[in-house]
Amino acid sequence: MNKTLGIGLAGFGTVGTGVWETLERNFDLISNRTGVRTEMMRIAVRDINKSRPEGAPVEKFTTDWKDVVNDPTVDIVVELIGGTTTAFEIVEAALKARKPVVTGNKALLAERGKALFALSREMNTPIHFEAAVAGGIPIIKAVQDSFVGNRIETMAGIINGTSNYILERMTDAGLGYPEALKEAQELGYAEADPTLDVNGWDAAHKAILLATLSYGFSIDPAEVYVRGIEMVRGIDIEFAKRLGFVVKLLCVVREHENGTVEIRTQPSFIPQSHVLSSVNGVFNAVAINGDASGESLFYGRGAGKGPTASSVVADIVEAARGFAQEAGHRGFLPYQTEGQLVPIEDTETPYYVRFDVTDEPGVIAKIANILADAGIGISGTHSPVNADDPDADFVDMVFQLHTCKFGLLKDTLKEIEALNCVNSRPVVFRIENLG
Amino acid sequence: MNKTLGIGLAGFGTVGTGVWETLERNFDLISNRTGVRTEMMRIAVRDINKSRPEGAPVEKFTTDWKDVVNDPTVDIVVELIGGTTTAFEIVEAALKARKPVVTGNKALLAERGKALFALSREMNTPIHFEAAVAGGIPIIKAVQDSFVGNRIETMAGIINGTSNYILERMTDAGLGYPEALKEAQELGYAEADPTLDVNGWDAAHKAILLATLSYGFSIDPAEVYVRGIEMVRGIDIEFAKRLGFVVKLLCVVREHENGTVEIRTQPSFIPQSHVLSSVNGVFNAVAINGDASGESLFYGRGAGKGPTASSVVADIVEAARGFAQEAGHRGFLPYQTEGQLVPIEDTETPYYVRFDVTDEPGVIAKIANILADAGIGISGTHSPVNADDPDADFVDMVFQLHTCKFGLLKDTLKEIEALNCVNSRPVVFRIENLG
Ligand SMILES: NC(=O)c1ccc[n+]([C@@H]2O[C@H](COP(=O)([O-])OP(=O)(O)OC[C@H]3O[C@@H](n4cnc5c(N)ncnc54)[C@H](OP(=O)(O)O)[C@@H]3O)[C@@H](O)[C@H]2O)c1
Ligand SMILES: NC(=O)c1ccc[n+]([C@@H]2O[C@H](COP(=O)([O-])OP(=O)(O)OC[C@H]3O[C@@H](n4cnc5c(N)ncnc54)[C@H](OP(=O)(O)O)[C@@H]3O)[C@@H](O)[C@H]2O)c1
Repeated sequence: MNKTLGIGLAGFGTVGTGVWETLERNFDLISNRTGVRTEMMRIAVRDINKSRPEGAPVEKFTTDWKDVVNDPTVDIVVELIGGTTTAFEIVEAALKARKPVVTGNKALLAERGKALFALSREMNTPIHFEAAVAGGIPIIKAVQDSFVGNRIETMAGIINGTSNYILERMTDAGLGYPEALKEAQELGYAEADPTLDVNGWDAAHKAILLATLSYGFSIDPAEVYVRGIEMVRGIDIEFAKRLGFVVKLLCVVREHENGTVEIRTQPSFIPQSHVLSSVNGVFNAVAINGDASGESLFYGRGAGKGPTASSVVADIVEAARGFAQEAGHRGFLPYQTEGQLVPIEDTETPYYVRFDVTDEPGVIAKIANILADAGIGISGTHSPVNADDPDADFVDMVFQLHTCKFGLLKDTLKEIEALNCVNSRPVVFRIENLG
Repeated sequence: MNKTLGIGLAGFGTVGTGVWETLERNFDLISNRTGVRTEMMRIAVRDINKSRPEGAPVEKFTTDWKDVVNDPTVDIVVELIGGTTTAFEIVEAALKARKPVVTGNKALLAERGKALFALSREMNTPIHFEAAVAGGIPIIKAVQDSFVGNRIETMAGIINGTSNYILERMTDAGLGYPEALKEAQELGYAEADPTLDVNGWDAAHKAILLATLSYGFSIDPAEVYVRGIEMVRGIDIEFAKRLGFVVKLLCVVREHENGTVEIRTQPSFIPQSHVLSSVNGVFNAVAINGDASGESLFYGRGAGKGPTASSVVADIVEAARGFAQEAGHRGFLPYQTEGQLVPIEDTETPYYVRFDVTDEPGVIAKIANILADAGIGISGTHSPVNADDPDADFVDMVFQLHTCKFGLLKDTLKEIEALNCVNSRPVVFRIENLG
C-alpha cells in the first residue's frame, strides 16, 4: 500500500480520543507492521468549545457529521458517538457512499443492525465492530474468523464490567447494591446513568451480536430474555457462596439439537471452580465451545479508552487492507530485517535456588556470605530438608533471592558450587510475578 | 466467490485427519458463512497401506508430496507432516508455485522460517500458521491482527500441554517426574519420544514465533535461553506451594525500554493468585499486555485433532479469501435470512429461588407441595433467614431446585406467589453448571 488512508471520525469522547492517541503514538509501528498509513481527516463532535486533550487536532473538528462522511479525503468512517439515531444516519450515509465503517456501538447494531447489515451487503462495503463487544478482547474476530470452521455449541460471557464490578463488591466487601453502585460511579466504572449496564441490556446487546455472528440470522431484541442485577441481594450472594457458587451477570448462547438458539442474560449462579467465576472487577470474559476447537476462553478489559481503541484500530487496519491491491504485509513476516535480543545474563527476576549440600554446621553462612559479597539479597532460606531420608548426609537447602541479573546469579552460583559442602549444580527457578 | 478451492494436503496423521473431517462435517456451514467452498484434491502420506479412518479419501493418496504441490487443481498447500526437512521442501515448492501455504509446523518456522518468510514475501504468497502455536487458541491472529495497534509489552505463555500435564500431576498427585511422564505417555498426552516437549524446545519454538510476530525480526533459536522440566523435583513443587506459587513451564517475551527483546522458556514459579496458575492439564494459555489493550488472556486446548484442525481450517478460509475478488462475506452479516430462537420457557437449568415469606409454621410444606405437584424436584431448602433483623415477621426462604423448564417453574411460582404466606414475587437465579 502506498496510499495514505483518510480516516473520518465521528465522536471524540472516551473512545474517539483513545483512537486518535493510539494512531498517533504507534503510527510507525502500525505502518511497519502492515504497510497501512492512516491520517485523521475530519472529526465530528457535539460541542466544539469543549476543552480537549493537549494537542488534539481541533482544526479538524466540525459539529456536522455530514462534513465527515462527505469529505472526499475520508476513506473510512469511524462512528464513536453512541446512541441509535444520529449514529444510524452516519453509518447509513457512509455505507451509501461505499465508505467502510468501523464502530463500537453495540446498541446500534443490536437494535438496528438488520437494516445496516443488509445495506452493507448491498453496497459491498463492510461494517467492522470489534470494539462493540468486550472492549479490548478480540472476540468478534475469533467468532467470525478463527472459529469459522466450528459449529458454535455454547458461548457464556461476562460482558458487562460495571455489573461485574458491583457484584464483586457485594461479594467481597459485603456492600449492598446501592452502595456498590455508588462506589462504581465514583470510580468512573459506571456512568451517571447506569441503566443499560445494571438492567442487563448492554450485555444483552453484545450477546445478540455474538449470536448473530455464530448462527447467521438477525435477532430481534424484543425476543430476548434479559434480567439485570438490581434484584440481587446480599443474601443471594451469601447463599451462592455457601453452596459453592458465585453470582455473575451471565450471557448464555447455545444451539439446541434442532438448530434453534437459546439466548439469555441474567444474574446466575456459576460454580466457584469454573474459570469464569474468577473474572473480577471490570474485566470481561467469554467462553466458547466449538465442535472442533473444544473449550476456549478469552479474557481482558471490557471497556475503557485504551482497550476499546485497540480494537477500533485493529478494525481500521482491516478496513484499510480492503483498499490495498495486495493483501498487505500480513503473512509476509518478518517485517524488520534485524532486531536485538536481550542476553539472558541481563534479564532479571527474583529466584528460588535449591542446593544439594552436605548436612554440616556453617553451610548456610558460607552460602549467604558469597551471596552477600555479590550484593544479592536473600528474602528467605529454608534449612536442610530431605523428604526421602531424614538421616541422609546430603540434604536440599532452599534460598529465595531478591531480584538480580541472571548473569550475576550465575557467576555467584559457580563460586558457591565450588564449596566443598555443595555437592552438585544448584537448581534455579525464576519467580515470575507477572505484574 | 464462485470458484471451489482446491486443497492439497501433505500429511494425514492426527491433524491432517482432523482437517479433512472438519471440512467434511461443516462444509455447508463454512460455505454459508464465508462463501468459501473447498475440495480436497490430493493427499500425501508416508505409507499408503496404513489403515485409515472409515471413509478416508484414499483414492487421493500419494506418497510423493510433489504430486500434491504440482497438481494443477491444488490452489492451497496444507503442510501437516512435521519435521524440518521434507516439510521445508514442500513449503518452498508451494511458495515458488505461488500457492499459499497453511502449516502447523512450529519447528519448521522457528528453525528455518527466515528463508521461508523471505521467499513468501518475494513470491507475494502468504504462509498461514495459526495451528503452529497453542492449537485451537487463535493467538497468532490475535497478535498479528487484533493487537496490530499495540506495542506488545509482555507475553507470558503456558504453551506446552505435555509439560503442563506432567507438572500438574507432580503438584496434585505428588507423582515424581518419571511416573508423571509415563502416565502422560499412557494417556496419549506425550509422544513416545517426548524430548521436544520436556526439554522446553516445543514451547520455545512457539515463543519464537510469537516474538517474531510482535517485534518483526527473525530470531535465531541458538540465541534463545531454554530449559525444560526434567530438573523439577517434588521438593521444588512443595516449596513453591508453601511460598504461594505454582511451578509452570513458562515462556516469557518482553520488550525492554531500549527496544531489545527478552525471550526465554523455563520452569518458573508463578503466583497462585495469577490466572495463569490455574491453567491445568493439557490446556494452554497466553497472557498478552499491549500498551493500549492492557492485560488480556487467551485460553484453550493447545493440541489434539479437533482444536488444531479448527485453526488449520480458519487459515484455509483466510487463504481462500485471498483468491476472491471481493472480500468475501465477512462483515456482510447476517448470512441467513432467518433462524429460530428457543422460547425462554423451554430453556432449562437448575434454579435457586428466594421467597419472602411470613414466618409461620407450615410454610415450607405449602411451597414444597406445590413444587411436588408440578413435578419439580427440590435439592435443598434453607429455612427462614433474616440477616438484617432476626425478629422480623418477614423472612427469606431459599429453595434449590432440580433442572426443569423455565416455563414450568414460572407457572408454578405464580401459584406459590398466590399463597397468603408469600409476600412478594419470588426471585429466581439460574444455576449454570457451564459444563
Ligand atoms: N467507553 C467505553 O469504554 C466503550 C467501550 C466499548 C464501546 N463503547 C462505545 O463507543 C461509543 C462511544 O463511547 P464513548 O464512551 O467514547 O462516548 P462519549 O465519551 O460520550 O463520547 C461521545 C462523543 O460523541 C460526540 N457526539 C455525540 N453526539 C454527537 C453528534 N450528534 N454529532 C457529533 N458528535 C457527537 C461527543 O461530542 P462532545 O465531545 O462534543 O460531547 C463525544 O465526543 C458508544 O457507542 C459506546 O457504546 C464505549
Ligand atoms: N498433534 C497435534 O496435536 C499438533 C498440534 C499442533 C501442531 N501440530 C503440528 O502438526 C504437524 C503434524 O502433526 P501430527 O500430530 O498430525 O503428526 P502425525 O500424526 O505424525 O502425522 C504425520 C503425517 O505426515 C505423513 N508423513 C510423514 N512424512 C511424510 C513424507 N515424507 N511424505 C508424505 N507424508 C509424510 C504421515 O504419513 P503416514 O500417515 O503414512 O504415517 C502422517 O500422515 C506437525 O508439524 C506438528 O508439530 C500437531
